[in-house]
Amino acid sequence: MRLRLTVAYVGTRYQGWQLQAGSAALQTIQGQLEHALGLLAGQPVRVHGSGRTDAGVHAEGQVAHCDMPDDRLARLKDLRHSLNALLPDDIRVFAACPADPDFHARFSAHAKTYRYQFWQDKGFVPPRLVPYVWCSGPLDVERMRAALPFLQGRHDFACLANAGSRPGESTVRELYALTLAEDVVWQGCQPLLTLQVTGSGFLKQMVRNLAGLLAAIGRGRLEAAVIPRLLAQGERRLVPTATAPARGLTMVSVDYGEHRS
Amino acid sequence: MRLRLTVAYVGTRYQGWQLQAGSAALQTIQGQLEHALGLLAGQPVRVHGSGRTDAGVHAEGQVAHCDMPDDRLARLKDLRHSLNALLPDDIRVFAACPADPDFHARFSAHAKTYRYQFWQDKGFVPPRLVPYVWCSGPLDVERMRAALPFLQGRHDFACLANAGSRPGESTVRELYALTLAEDVVWQGCQPLLTLQVTGSGFLKQMVRNLAGLLAAIGRGRLEAAVIPRLLAQGERRLVPTATAPARGLTMVSVDYGEHRS
Repeated sequence: MRLRLTVAYVGTRYQGWQLQAGSAALQTIQGQLEHALGLLAGQPVRVHGSGRTDAGVHAEGQVAHCDMPDDRLARLKDLRHSLNALLPDDIRVFAACPADPDFHARFSAHAKTYRYQFWQDKGFVPPRLVPYVWCSGPLDVERMRAALPFLQGRHDFACLANAGSRPGESTVRELYALTLAEDVVWQGCQPLLTLQVTGSGFLKQMVRNLAGLLAAIGRGRLEAAVIPRLLAQGERRLVPTATAPARGLTMVSVDYGEHRS
Repeated sequence: MRLRLTVAYVGTRYQGWQLQAGSAALQTIQGQLEHALGLLAGQPVRVHGSGRTDAGVHAEGQVAHCDMPDDRLARLKDLRHSLNALLPDDIRVFAACPADPDFHARFSAHAKTYRYQFWQDKGFVPPRLVPYVWCSGPLDVERMRAALPFLQGRHDFACLANAGSRPGESTVRELYALTLAEDVVWQGCQPLLTLQVTGSGFLKQMVRNLAGLLAAIGRGRLEAAVIPRLLAQGERRLVPTATAPARGLTMVSVDYGEHRS
């Protein structure tokens, strides 16, 4: 039977989502899930994620699918409980449900949402937030907000894709919504700044490149109005800003178009 | 010069606040601070905290004092920055300020505030919250709220003190405010339940014993009305509930009566 898993994780300790040559399987999220599912299935299980997350990137609602032998599943009273008992506590399965046989975590996805968190006080980061924010220093939020309309909509985002995107793949994506929110989470500090982006899909390190670009605008080093030119040029090397650190990024959710009216 | 430090930490990796025989100094928060301050002072520095936190307990606003040689201090452009550069990133100094020579982190304190967090869903704990909550299972908040008035005010809290309190010390304390708040932090899960307690002071493991007692009431295993009898008996062994785990507890702040009008 095909299963759909919704998985949350703290990415700090892992080499990213994907199994890769040169890393032990258990240093990846996919490897940890395959290990736990394999023990329950009594045979190797392949797990397919909605997308790869980099080393150090977190997730609240990563989605994956896999196939499990029916007889083994029938014997499990509570698959979620059994999985969570086998997984380390920085990887938690929120839901493990039967899915249509043609459900595919990656190809069935309509949209994905990511969140990127900026911490503005260089002098003090609340220790609980350290693994989840980029300590970017002070940012001008209004300058950053002015940049969002240039990014919204359907564009060729090649200029925000790092090398290693899936070869031959189109670099056109549609960003449906971009928001920047300020939250006071620590008295006496600048607000935590949260970028949330929902799009049809994302190229390799696209959200982190977007975060790096917006931070440069927020620091006054770049004008928002240059974005259309950068998009038109379509070359990462012509974008004069760095990829923002992985720790600030969280995959929030994957939308499979099921809740549309 | 006497300094007052406000310190936040994630207690997970430490053996608690206090330096103790049998633990390496750097496994304690006090030891880490003394190590960093000692490097800046060029001589040993003793740090006095407002109170000890147990192994695994966190802090947002622990306060400590110490004395530093004036000539060394004069040479430091930004003491907070220098300290944070020397400390591990799960211990952060929020403020390092000159204090009156008679300021004492423990004896000058008027009140302290602690927070204890209960997670009600046994099946799923958001991985980011794992180090900060007790996975208590479902609790009846209204039953717990009904217990709070029995605890508020001036009482002998000996029945909520574990062995190892300071010998000869009075066990009378005053609780000024107790609140229980529910926050939905994860869609599809029960709310996070947060107990916040402000009091004149706290006995050894008093907040964790209070949390254990309230959880038993929230589970329907004990009636709130037994509290006056337990307080009157004044014996920990007659309280039929366990000490709640350290990870759910955070020292929020210490009040030195400076902001009173």
